[in-house]
This record gives sequence, structure tokens and C-alpha cells, in this order.
Amino acid sequence: MAIAGVGETTYYKRGQSPDPEFKLVLKAILAACEDAGISPREIDGFASFSNDRNDPSRLSAALGLAELRFSNMQWGGGGGGASAAIANAAAAVVSGLADCVVAYRGLAQGQFARFGQGARIPGVSGDAAYTLPYGVMSPAQMFAMRSTRLMHEHGIRQEALRAVSLAAYHHAQNNPNAVMQGRPLTPEKYDDSRWIVEPFHLYDCCLENDGAAAVIVVAAERARDLPNKPCYLLGAAIGSGYRDGASVHNQPDYATSTFKTVAPRLFEMAGVSPRDCDVVQSYENFTGAVVMSLIEHGFVSYEEANDAITFDNLIAPTGSLPLNTSGGNLAEFYMHGLGLNIEAIRQIRGTSCNQVPDVKVSFVNAGPMVTPVSNAIFGSEETL
Amino acid sequence: MAIAGVGETTYYKRGQSPDPEFKLVLKAILAACEDAGISPREIDGFASFSNDRNDPSRLSAALGLAELRFSNMQWGGGGGGASAAIANAAAAVVSGLADCVVAYRGLAQGQFARFGQGARIPGVSGDAAYTLPYGVMSPAQMFAMRSTRLMHEHGIRQEALRAVSLAAYHHAQNNPNAVMQGRPLTPEKYDDSRWIVEPFHLYDCCLENDGAAAVIVVAAERARDLPNKPCYLLGAAIGSGYRDGASVHNQPDYATSTFKTVAPRLFEMAGVSPRDCDVVQSYENFTGAVVMSLIEHGFVSYEEANDAITFDNLIAPTGSLPLNTSGGNLAEFYMHGLGLNIEAIRQIRGTSCNQVPDVKVSFVNAGPMVTPVSNAIFGSEETL
Repeated sequence: MAIAGVGETTYYKRGQSPDPEFKLVLKAILAACEDAGISPREIDGFASFSNDRNDPSRLSAALGLAELRFSNMQWGGGGGGASAAIANAAAAVVSGLADCVVAYRGLAQGQFARFGQGARIPGVSGDAAYTLPYGVMSPAQMFAMRSTRLMHEHGIRQEALRAVSLAAYHHAQNNPNAVMQGRPLTPEKYDDSRWIVEPFHLYDCCLENDGAAAVIVVAAERARDLPNKPCYLLGAAIGSGYRDGASVHNQPDYATSTFKTVAPRLFEMAGVSPRDCDVVQSYENFTGAVVMSLIEHGFVSYEEANDAITFDNLIAPTGSLPLNTSGGNLAEFYMHGLGLNIEAIRQIRGTSCNQVPDVKVSFVNAGPMVTPVSNAIFGSEETL
Repeated sequence: MAIAGVGETTYYKRGQSPDPEFKLVLKAILAACEDAGISPREIDGFASFSNDRNDPSRLSAALGLAELRFSNMQWGGGGGGASAAIANAAAAVVSGLADCVVAYRGLAQGQFARFGQGARIPGVSGDAAYTLPYGVMSPAQMFAMRSTRLMHEHGIRQEALRAVSLAAYHHAQNNPNAVMQGRPLTPEKYDDSRWIVEPFHLYDCCLENDGAAAVIVVAAERARDLPNKPCYLLGAAIGSGYRDGASVHNQPDYATSTFKTVAPRLFEMAGVSPRDCDVVQSYENFTGAVVMSLIEHGFVSYEEANDAITFDNLIAPTGSLPLNTSGGNLAEFYMHGLGLNIEAIRQIRGTSCNQVPDVKVSFVNAGPMVTPVSNAIFGSEETL
């Protein structure tokens, strides 16, 4: 499987998109088609995630597809499904259900509800019924407790979280599509910023944007006929661990994420090890998630975390562990992780704003908080 | 790909389930595991459709899965996704994302909203905004117009619709799991029944039930080690045609369904022709849909329809075109078409209540009204 093209809209601050969400999605898909050098009529499948509101049947009518042959949604809310959508698109092509599948996400939080806000509905059910009475209402509050536990159990310092944030803002300064370009972050500014929920300062939390992104998946042979340098999907994994379906606060090992179980499957399918990965995109709803993911994917050990997760190590092209090289969810834009996948693809193509030299293996993970989560590894021609 | 096992709950009239919907789904999955001779802990993926409310993460926690590796939803409302869910489960196994995937559907219409009823929400959007002002509110009304057009353009008579209904009720009398067992239908009773919307009498319309059904998909090699006679998935197709995403009432060829475009792909993937199919399960939201599907899948031509779609031809085991041999959505129960898929599987195994002798190729289609639609062909060992 290979990536034929990627597309993105301009990203707007929440509420500032001049277009409705559906039109944003169409724009992103058309941009991906142009990037891929294919006609939109060649598309025959769609995959999205997290209860995307932009129905493939309406998309096909709007794009004038001859026939829609695959139309699938990764179950579960949150950003865990971004790489899963790409995996599902690839599974459709592998199994012959479709030939040219778009993984996409449209998210105009300004036009619908905000994810970062607590539940406001009068009838509360599910997990929320157990957490709301204790004042745990927003994603930041929920993930703060897990991150605190991680820091407590393994002596992870606030500086590791800060380094993730500083690296993202540093990378965003070179990225014209980044919402935070022109608004650099310093250690002092980070330290002085308000707490959202300890251990998360303002700059530890993802953005909230209006926009859309799209990734076109085709068979490897097809990709070789297209203008872009081929980017291959070496592997992808989706998953939840035991009891992840219960409340996230009711798990046997509270300081870990689901990647503990999903990571080994990814590396096995891709046939590479963490050491082979030249560049890493790791989903940041909050910076604590990145620290957790880097450890659970084997990029650093618990013991190494404080020394390895530093600004110098995380920046491209000079760092030893270049991370979130577009600015990521913190400083580029928040498209529920699909943007991180696109940046992982750009690094293979050699077209990132913060290009790591000679990338052969490019890693991305999506969402450690809401399960199922997912991750993917892309490779260059040399890795096949 | 193969079917390891199938499971169903008792089916209740809408509103009469003693269990909540989620528990019904668990019961159906456990029944499928028992049928397959596997432990529920062997399941590592879930596929459903039509915005099923029973989240796989919660299912995995309740079933005690070691790890959830695939969790997918066929997009789009209605019954078009039943075979698609099986196709998606198979795609997950083919592509290595998971090994043992349950396609399922839980539907307690008594505990949530009824599908058969018109929109009652105060804010109406999408297609409904264009049809409600003209009094087109319920699925029966919407599909009545298409069926009428079919009958008008091709001279299809009411007797063809009646034959579909009579065959379903006839088959249900031998099926202890059928809601309508013990309530046989005669031509006179059909003719005397009230119109819901012309050309649909009461008995042309599907049931509304509480219940759940599950189908376990595994690799063919795995199925050969299990107790049941293996049933192979020879092919499955999913799709919408051009402009299906626009209002269903705004299509170039109003007297047809999406199967016009999806049917050829199914037969091509399965490597069989309509003539090879020994038994047919065809989704009946309303009987008009069956007539449309039988024609568009090539089982009968427009010209043959009145002569071929007769009670004598449609009943098992003696008819030349045995149809909906469990009673289907009209007389067995309405599980959004997953029950029809299960009956198609039973016919391969030789365990139907109305078994057609020596079935090698078993056909099913799901949903001609709401797109995407889907269909599947199952085969016995001899067909491989």
C-alpha cells in the first residue's frame, strides 16, 4: 500500500472558518487529488474516524464519483482513529473492495461542539456519569491524572513535557500552514503561562481548529505511476487493551496507555524496530501523552525519559529524536491527528518544512486517551 | 475468508425485550462463539453498521478480550450495511489487522427510536428538509414512490409483491425463531390487509424487533479446524451509485436501486453468476425492494418478473428461486439484514429450517434504500 497524495485546507482558529465543515472536507480532498495527480472521479472509497459528520455518500455526490465502493468509519471518539482510518483505507484496497480510498477528517469545532469542553448535555451517561460528580469534566482533567501518575511513578519531570511543547512551537515557526507560526514559545513564556490542569500549562494542550485534511491510499503499483515520490505504508495497528472499554480511570496500570499493547504489533507488521525510525510524530492532546507514547513505543526507556526528551534532542534536523516536525496538534493545527500522519508522509517524501535528511522510516501514533488508538509506519522505496 | 459461527438472541416484538440492547448484543456474540466452538477471548475485532449504539470498546471489556485490534463501522444508516459489516470484518482479517472479527447488530427499537417512524425532531436537516414539507416522512412513503415507478415502467404487478410476502410467511412457519411462526398468511389475508402506503399492504413491510445477531469471520484455514461445516465468503461488495448521496428522490433512474451498479462487482469478485446461486436472501424493508434487487442482480429480467416471482417459485425446497428461506425481515425478525446473512450461511451449512438441498452457492443482499448498500455470496468447500 502507498500514499498517492495528501491535502489540507487552511487552518482556522475555532469559529473562524469562512466555509461550512462539509466544504472544508471537499477542499481538502480536492487538494489531495491535485497533489496526487489524479481526478477526484478516481476515488472509490472513504474512511474516517471519531464520528465524522461528513457522510461519504454526500461526498461522492458532491465530488461526482462514478461509484462509491467503500465507506467506513473507525469506531470510537477522539483522535485515536487517525492512523486507523489510513489502515482501514489500506485494508479496503488490500482486500479488493476498492482501489483509491481517501482517509479524511473534517473538524469545524466552531460550527459544532468543542471537544475540549466538558459535557454540557442535561442527560449524562456512560463514563461521564462516574466522573462528572467528582468534577472530572474535560479531556484535560481526565488526562492530567494519568500523566501525573506517570510522572509520580517514574520520576518524569515537568521539563520533559515542556520540551515537547517547545519543540512543537519551534517547528511551527518554519511552517506557513501552522496556526502558531509567528508566535514562538520560550521556556519562560511556558513557565509563566497559566495552568489548565496541573501538570498541563496552556502550552501543553492541543489547539482547537476549523479545517480538514485528506490522505489518498492506493496500491503500491499505482503509486509508482504518480508524480509524487512514493510513500509506502509498512504497517499500521489499531487497538484497545483489556478493560480499556471500562472507564479510563478504572484500569490496572493507570500510568500507561493502550500503546503498551498496540506498539509491538505495529513494529512486527512493519518489520522495523524503534531504532529504525528516523522521525517521530506523536499525538498530543496533551504533552503527557507524548512522553507516555515515546516510552511505550520503545523510543526511550522510563529511566532515559528525562535526559532524552529535551528540546535539543526533539528538534529537526539536528536532534537525535526529531518529534512533531510540523508543529503537531500543539502548534500547527488540531485535525484529530490526521495532520501528524500527513507530516509523517511528508518526511518520507522529503517535503517537510523541517525535513530530517534522508528519511527512510517515518513513525506516527494517534491518540493515547480514547480507545481504540492507532499508529502507523511509513517507508521509502528502500525499505521494501 | 470463512464464517466460524453465527449467533442470535430470541427476537422480541419492539419494546418487549427483557434485556437492554447492549446485553442482547453480548448474548448474540456469546451464542456465536458457542456455535463456532471458540472462546470469546479469541475475538479481536468488531464490525457493525448503521450507527450501532453498542461500542466495541465496551463490548471488549464486557467479554474480557485480551486485546481489541479492529473496530469498524459501516457508514450510513439503514440496512444497507449488513453484508458490508461482514465484508469489513473479512478485510480486517485479509489485511492482517485482526484474526477473529465479529460482525454484529443490536437493535432494540423499543428502547430507542423506531426506524419505521417519520422524523419527530424539531430541527429537520438533510434530505428530510426537502421531503417533509411534501408529507414524505416515513421509510414506507419514501420507498413506495420508487416501487410504484418500477411497477409503472415495467408493468410489474402487485401479485409479485404479494408472492414475496407469502413466501416469507410460509418459510417462517417452520422457523421456531421467527416472530411470525404460528401466524400464517394467505392471499386473502394479504389482499384484505390495510394499506400502509400504496403499493405496500401491512404485510409488505418489515417487522420492528428487539434483538441482536452476530457472525464470526476468520481465515479459511482457521475455519477448517472448527466444528461447523465451513462456509466461505466468496465475495462481497459495497457501494453507492452516482448521485446516490443526493436525495434518493433526485436520481437519474428512479425505478432502480444502487444494486444496478453494485451487483456486477459482487459476481465478478465471487467468480459466479446469478445462475450459480442455489438460494437467495434479499433484503425486504418493503417487498418492492426485493423485486428490484432480484431484477438488478440478474435473477430475473424485467420481462420475466411477473411470471418468475410467484409463491411456487419462491418457496424452499421445491421452488426454482427459493427466497428468504427463514422468513426474512417480513416474518422472521428485523435485524437490519444481518439475519438474512445468517440464513444465507445456514443454507451453506445445511442447517436452515427450510433447507434447499445441496446448496453450494448462497446469495444475500442488504438494503436497497439507504446507501451504501451491500451484498455477499457464500460458498461451500466445493466452490473454492
